[in-house]
Parts: sequence; structure tokens; C-alpha cells
Amino acid sequence: MQKVTKVRELLGQKGLDAIWIKSKTMKKWLATMTGSGCQIFITREDEYLILDGRYLAEAKDKEPNLNILLHEQNANAIEYVYMMINIFQKKGYQNLGVEARDISVKEYQALLDAGINVTLLDQEIVSLRMIKDESEIAKLKEVVELTDQIFLKVLSKVRPGMTENELSAWIQYYSISAGAQKMSFDTIVATGERTAYPHGRPTNKIIKEHEPIMIDFGIQYDNYQSDMTRVCFIKKPTPEIKEVYNLVLEAQKKSIESIKTGVLAKDVDSVARNIITDAGYGKYFNHGLGHGLGIGEDGEGPLLNKQSTTILQNNMAMSCEPGVYIPGLGGIRIEDDVVILNGIGMSLNKTTKDYIILD
Amino acid sequence: MQKVTKVRELLGQKGLDAIWIKSKTMKKWLATMTGSGCQIFITREDEYLILDGRYLAEAKDKEPNLNILLHEQNANAIEYVYMMINIFQKKGYQNLGVEARDISVKEYQALLDAGINVTLLDQEIVSLRMIKDESEIAKLKEVVELTDQIFLKVLSKVRPGMTENELSAWIQYYSISAGAQKMSFDTIVATGERTAYPHGRPTNKIIKEHEPIMIDFGIQYDNYQSDMTRVCFIKKPTPEIKEVYNLVLEAQKKSIESIKTGVLAKDVDSVARNIITDAGYGKYFNHGLGHGLGIGEDGEGPLLNKQSTTILQNNMAMSCEPGVYIPGLGGIRIEDDVVILNGIGMSLNKTTKDYIILD
Repeated sequence: MQKVTKVRELLGQKGLDAIWIKSKTMKKWLATMTGSGCQIFITREDEYLILDGRYLAEAKDKEPNLNILLHEQNANAIEYVYMMINIFQKKGYQNLGVEARDISVKEYQALLDAGINVTLLDQEIVSLRMIKDESEIAKLKEVVELTDQIFLKVLSKVRPGMTENELSAWIQYYSISAGAQKMSFDTIVATGERTAYPHGRPTNKIIKEHEPIMIDFGIQYDNYQSDMTRVCFIKKPTPEIKEVYNLVLEAQKKSIESIKTGVLAKDVDSVARNIITDAGYGKYFNHGLGHGLGIGEDGEGPLLNKQSTTILQNNMAMSCEPGVYIPGLGGIRIEDDVVILNGIGMSLNKTTKDYIILD
Repeated sequence: MQKVTKVRELLGQKGLDAIWIKSKTMKKWLATMTGSGCQIFITREDEYLILDGRYLAEAKDKEPNLNILLHEQNANAIEYVYMMINIFQKKGYQNLGVEARDISVKEYQALLDAGINVTLLDQEIVSLRMIKDESEIAKLKEVVELTDQIFLKVLSKVRPGMTENELSAWIQYYSISAGAQKMSFDTIVATGERTAYPHGRPTNKIIKEHEPIMIDFGIQYDNYQSDMTRVCFIKKPTPEIKEVYNLVLEAQKKSIESIKTGVLAKDVDSVARNIITDAGYGKYFNHGLGHGLGIGEDGEGPLLNKQSTTILQNNMAMSCEPGVYIPGLGGIRIEDDVVILNGIGMSLNKTTKDYIILD
């Protein structure tokens, strides 16, 4: 179990005797049971699954490699914390790492009261997930391939006179119908001037000819998430929007080309940002270039933005999504999911990035 | 602003000088801005909205009744905590209430370090939302009416040979198309023997004639959520399932009739549970009878279960959803959304509860 090895390396780096994994995100990453009543506890020597009786039958079946510890079911109690404390005392352990975003004050206080040194972990946890293994890369390829297929089906439904809400509805229809567990975030459908909102939620606005139709959606499939954006048109766009489109497309292609092992994340952001700024649209690109991909919740690295000092490495996965948003006119964003394989960033999306004109 | 009055009553009861509202749920309830960068701070004397520059323009526009305090934007810092501490020191306050589920250890520690007495609030917060005001009742009526309409459209799509995933996809389609902000939880579609799982997620299983088709879904509309379950059939069910259906239906109707002002929540649960137990199916009804409705996240009261000692009151809203799940055979659950008006529980759902046989 290679991921447990990664966790043990973190124990070593931080001088910890054990780590308590509470978040659903990290349980998905470890491919353990994900219920809120299941706690994963990894010490220098052992791996435990702490749970109440509701989960026992499933745990015996699915988790042969974990030591199962059973406690009473009690919605308001924190029995699992006392089981970890008990192990600490028996083994003479002192230092426990916990997920800063997930531990409650009550749990934290109980650990302190027992004399345990608690280390709050945050970016360290995000970093654990940053470099994907082969099975994760395979899952990302699969979810993006499915996303491309869904997008094509959605395109076949775009008609002038339909509302943004109805277009969004078709996105959910084809996604769930294809077996997606759920949408990875609230779907964005914005059209016309509303495309100037980077994250426009769909409304009852009617979709018209010639205006930009921005679709940004993603699905969760086998616990891994996709995220893609395209802008299409029913009949030709105006020259102003076409100019912006071509600019964003150039920025997106060039920045993907710059994604390589050893490059600083902020330098990739600069590639896109400089192209857009040099064309005079810099102030309209008002967000970072991209974010990490994977389980897709609780933050994924690497971030691609002006500040990010992450050095890109093989098997990292990230979105690349430059955008230009001009109030009163509209906006364009083009987003692919990129993984670094053999040192080079490659887009997993096969959907065309040339502007799509529907008849 | 009646809800602020409720909050101030809580301050009085708990001897607090102020409360910090951090959760999206409570911001929705207060009808303030809901962004994670917006903190609501209600003292004995004033109401504040603490935010960073990203939210300022919107806040000036939308929040004329709140004192706006602006801090620097810094993703990893907790400037807003120091702004609250500052007010505590100026005013000579000592006691702050916070949401136990939402405060981080880092935030908690900063408050303690400043000498503030921090009270963790949990069920007290849930209780604030338990009795709905007129506008909330109106919103619940609206979202349930829409949900009934969506269900009817979904029924028109049920065909033998389609998969559970495709049926689920139509549920999302009609929901989003009708303007739902999102599904209120992951949609449940289970058919045949899989209906014995109370919360079966849809799969690629093919839907067949004569078997139970369980649909449990809800939408969020104008921030309020619905939740309904029906079981339908393509051609007649087997006599065994029909018997279970009629039993669950009786338990559901009788328990709704028992929902009244002054009744203990656990006694409502008993009405349904006794009917099912007396018929010999008690061990197959393995969950509580219902839960609160409203914003629908972070727990809503009242709970209807064996333990719940809540005394039902006017303008409370709750689901009523008895179920019987027999491994190897299948399950039936019937769920309505109920509000107590003029002392009497009334179902907001208009969809028939007789078993639905499609041709």
C-alpha cells in the first residue's frame, strides 16, 4: 500500500508517532471506507480503522489490511479519540498529527487533556495527494474522457430560445446518465453579457444567436473529478469576442506548453498572463491560471497563480484555464485538465478548442 | 429583523456578549451574504459583517443594515478573528459564542489567547432554526410544490429497460431545468431487490416490470430544501411487496395525523413504529421516522426518532418517512414534507401516496 508509505514518510519528516485521518477526501485517497463514523489511524507501526457497529460487517469484508477497533455508537461522544489516546499511552507515543480543517475543538481539547502533542497539518496533507500514482492517472484519464463525451452530447442540445437553466439541466442529465457519482461542482452556464461573470450560475435567461455560451462543468467518477470549460456560439460571434477568444486560446495553448517538470507554477501562470497583458486585456484576467486535480475537494495542488512557488513534477495534475471577462461585453475561458507525463504537460481533453459554431 | 432578535435571546439565555456566525447555513438563515470570506458578528448592541475587499462592493449594495468591517485579504490568516477580539476589548466584553461545527482550532486558540471565554454552540444553533417564520413556510411550500411537479415529469420517463442511472439523470434534468439551485442530496434511485438498501445510489441495473422503483430526491430552491420519496411500479407489484406497501402507507398516514403541537417527537416515531412492529416487520424499519427541514444542512430539527424528546410546536417542519427493507425481497419508503400549521401537521406534498402503477 504505497500511499501508507507516503504517510509514514510524513510522520518521519514531522517527528510524529501517528496521524489521524478524519476527512472523507483523505479516506477516498487511501481507498478506505469513507463513512463519517470511520476513523483511519496510522502509527509508525500499525494501521487501524476505528468504527462503531454500523460499519463492522462492511469493514470485515472490505478492509482485511487494517486493524479494526470497535467502539459504542453515540452520536455526540468522541469514543474514537479515547481509543487513539489509549494506543498512545500503551505504546509510549507523544506526537499526533491531525487534519487542521477537520478536527473539532472538542476532539482537540480531549487530545491535549491526555497530554498528547498535537500537530495541525494542512498543506502537508494537500501535498501528500499532489503527485498521482499510476492508478490515479488512469482514473483521471477515464473521467476526462467521459467528460469529453458528455460535452459532445450537450452540444447537440444547444438551441436558440432555450434557457441557461435548461442547458445546465442537459449537462446534469448526460453526466448522471453516464454514471457520474455527481457533479464535481455547481455547473456554470452563462451566456451573452453574463459570461463576464467568471462563475455565472445558470438563470432563466434565453440563449440567443451570436452570443458566447460558456459551459464549465465537471463530474466525479470513481472518486476522481474532472473540470472543463468551453465557449461555443450559435452562428458567428462578434469580431470583439472573436478577438478575445483567439487571445485566450493562444494563452491557454502556450501555457500548457510551458507545463514541464522542474518549472515553477507561478511561471506557468506568467506565460498566460503575459500574453493577455501584452494584448491590453491584463486587468480582465482576474483569477489564477489553474488548480490541482484529483479527489477535488479540500484543496488540490498544485495551484497555478502569481504566488505559487510549487515546482512542477511528473504525475502532477492540474487545470489550465485562462480567462478574459469584459463587463458589458462578455467573457471567454478555455479550460483543460493537464497531467505531467514523462516530464511534459499534456492535456487529457480531446474536445476541440477552436471556437465552436453551431448551426 | 426578527431572526436577529432570536439570536439576541440566545445571547441572553447563555450569558453571551456576542456570537460569531461562520457557517453558510446560518448565513442563509439570516439572509446575509454567504461567502466564506464573510463573517457575521452579532453583539448585544450591534450587528457586523466582517469581510475582505473582494466582497466590499456587493456588501455595500446588499447589506445596508450591517456595520461593515474590512480587513486585508490573506488566504491563511485569520484577520477577522482579531477584528472581533478588538471589539471585545473596546467594549469590555468577555463571553463569545461560536458554532462548534465550524470554528477551527487555530481560530479557537487565538480567541483563548486573547482572554475571551468561548462557548461552543451546537444544538442551540440548530434550535434557532427549528421554528420557521412565515417567509420560511412560504419558501418550503414553494419548493415542495416544485418538487411534486418535477416528480410527475420524471414519472412520464419511466420505462422498462432503462437503467437506474438514466432515471436518476431525468430527475436532475427536470430539477435543474425548473430552476433548482442544486439537488439537496445525492439522488437515490434503487429498483428491485436493491430497494432493500435504504439509501441505494443509482447503478446501471436495468429497470424491470413488476419490481419496486424507489425514488428519493430533493431540490434546493431559494435556499430552502425539499425531500420526497415514492415507490412506483411498471405493471403490478408482487403480493408480498404490495402488502409491505400498504403497511408503510398506513404507518405514514397515521404518524402524520399524530403530528401536533405539544406532542413529543418520539411519540410520533412510535405511532409509525408500532404499526410496523405489530405487523411483524419491526426489525426491517431500521432508521428514524424523520428529520427537520429548512436550509437542510448541518442538521435541522426536529428529529423524529426513538430518542427525540423535542416537543413539537407550531411552524416546525419535518420529513415523515417510514420504511420497511427486507433483504432479498426489497423495500418500501414513503416520504412527505410536513409543517405544523394551526397546531396540526399537514403534508405539503400533493403527489398521490397510493401505489403508482405505470403502463
